[in-house]
Amino acid sequence: MFSSAADSCSRRVFLITTLQVRPTRSSSAFLRTSITVSSHARTSASPCSSSSVVNAAMAAETSAKVIDGKSVAKVIREEIATEISRMKESTGVVPGLAVILVGDRKDSATYVRNKKKACESVGIKSYEVCLAEDSSEQEVLKYISSFNDDPSVNGILVQLPLPSHMNEQNILNAVCIEKDVDGFNPLNIGRLAMRDREPLFVPCTPKGCIELLHRYGVSIKGKRAVVIGRSNIVGMPAALLLQREDATVSIVHSRTKNPEEITREADIVISAVGQPNMVRGSWIKPGSVIIDVGINPVEDAKSPRGYRLVGDVCYEEASKIASAITPVPGGVGPMTIAMLLSNTLAAAKRANSFE
Amino acid sequence: MFSSAADSCSRRVFLITTLQVRPTRSSSAFLRTSITVSSHARTSASPCSSSSVVNAAMAAETSAKVIDGKSVAKVIREEIATEISRMKESTGVVPGLAVILVGDRKDSATYVRNKKKACESVGIKSYEVCLAEDSSEQEVLKYISSFNDDPSVNGILVQLPLPSHMNEQNILNAVCIEKDVDGFNPLNIGRLAMRDREPLFVPCTPKGCIELLHRYGVSIKGKRAVVIGRSNIVGMPAALLLQREDATVSIVHSRTKNPEEITREADIVISAVGQPNMVRGSWIKPGSVIIDVGINPVEDAKSPRGYRLVGDVCYEEASKIASAITPVPGGVGPMTIAMLLSNTLAAAKRANSFE
Repeated sequence: MFSSAADSCSRRVFLITTLQVRPTRSSSAFLRTSITVSSHARTSASPCSSSSVVNAAMAAETSAKVIDGKSVAKVIREEIATEISRMKESTGVVPGLAVILVGDRKDSATYVRNKKKACESVGIKSYEVCLAEDSSEQEVLKYISSFNDDPSVNGILVQLPLPSHMNEQNILNAVCIEKDVDGFNPLNIGRLAMRDREPLFVPCTPKGCIELLHRYGVSIKGKRAVVIGRSNIVGMPAALLLQREDATVSIVHSRTKNPEEITREADIVISAVGQPNMVRGSWIKPGSVIIDVGINPVEDAKSPRGYRLVGDVCYEEASKIASAITPVPGGVGPMTIAMLLSNTLAAAKRANSFE
Repeated sequence: MFSSAADSCSRRVFLITTLQVRPTRSSSAFLRTSITVSSHARTSASPCSSSSVVNAAMAAETSAKVIDGKSVAKVIREEIATEISRMKESTGVVPGLAVILVGDRKDSATYVRNKKKACESVGIKSYEVCLAEDSSEQEVLKYISSFNDDPSVNGILVQLPLPSHMNEQNILNAVCIEKDVDGFNPLNIGRLAMRDREPLFVPCTPKGCIELLHRYGVSIKGKRAVVIGRSNIVGMPAALLLQREDATVSIVHSRTKNPEEITREADIVISAVGQPNMVRGSWIKPGSVIIDVGINPVEDAKSPRGYRLVGDVCYEEASKIASAITPVPGGVGPMTIAMLLSNTLAAAKRANSFE
């Protein structure tokens, strides 16, 4: 999808009706990006915009390196498979992951199926419990307790969201910390926040974001990083991880008055807000690295499904300004499951004192 | 001390040898501060500077409101004493705080003595254990365990630093979370970091910083805040607290490349680095609010003790640019013990189901 979008960019020319360049520190570099304007240009809005006001950057050539999460995730899964074989040969044990699904949500069922498939592909034994929508909290807790006690299960995953009659915190807190491969236990988060402490597990999606930076050789130390969004499962732990790697981190959120200005100061941006195309080209510092966690469906009559998936970042605009960017889909998405497998392997190694 | 320093400022005139005003967003406001330059000015360095290059702002009149932590702490202690009386009348119980001191450090002994006195002044019963420097970790753990089991003890405090042969993490982790009035347990920190979770206790010094902002009517929501320093006991939890109150938070630390520039963007600055006078006037955005956690001894031949205490922030410069600032001493310092008393009261209320 994104190679075709990128292809179309280089052929497309835009009429620059308003040159929106603010006098920021980065403005001169911004203006240095090559701008191609055809005298025969026709008025054309950005695919990210509802107005016809088009940013200068949009006319520039695509320049950002595409951070290919799908390929990286594949490599990581192969590395994990190799490690699991080694472990099996040496100890006779393979890691086990238990997934608990409550209710009939189709999206949740798809996620669970994908996780199961991913487990099988690397040699992790998967255990699955599917409970009816109207099950009691007690029933879920009973399964968690039995998985807590089962030495063949190294990781326990409760698929969210749970039915509204259940107390999510109670249920998540019941997973023993040694098997909390999601890394959502507050004790894990606390250790992540603290210097000289080590979390047992790092939450999968933010871990995947940092892994992408590492695998693409993006140095983090001393860099300015902006995390957009402060959710417990992505934004907040992503900020803590960047901080652990010595970035200077700012967190932008719904109450931030000037998100564009602050984001434009960042060498590294991780966006996790769930707002399609919110981060426009004008938010991006030239040469920065963009990790887009958002996976947002937008209507698309041309798609057989009636929608397509886009990120939080207007890829078409940002890819002309950033030095590297993750596509959506195919960026952070595949990394999340890879990190879940990695956490499960780590749990199994720890439980079996295998290094 | 600070009233006299402020007095001397208004009488003192400086030669502005170099007008160091950078073209930032705040520069015009910066220049609007009234500048008094005497034609008979003599060359005079800032008390915060080793050079004779003096900032323009230094010649301006002192304008910042002094955030009087000593007075606020006194009010809070009175509020706590009233609550404890009410609790005693209603339940017959008073809160209890146990302090464990290991070794002969004079500063630690002073802190413990001050805490004991503060407890007595509000009606908290204090329990004290003093162990020899060469005590075993096991001995400390034994006392913690007995305080954990003692219902008359609501808070347990292990005075840091511990002798080097002891494992600090092991010892701190042994304090049960319901009595961890210091709030340093990773589970507490994790809850502090997470939305929709409540920590049982908030670490005393950062809690004191936020309390000062509240009591002085400083609104936090939507403001840009910079925390300088990322320690487990002040900087990091201060950043989490500001974030909980909807500030847009950036954390500046030793690896930050342009701390001055980033700090100058902040409406609220909390500095906790332990570097005397590191934050100069040029770091401060006009009208911002400065909370200075640093308490640093610097040589002072004129003082009978041979030293005096200064903050991380050059008070003389910053107080001319900020709208409000904490002095050192008399700012955050007295708030820390007040918050310890507040946490101990909260623990006792919780343990006795008293509201």
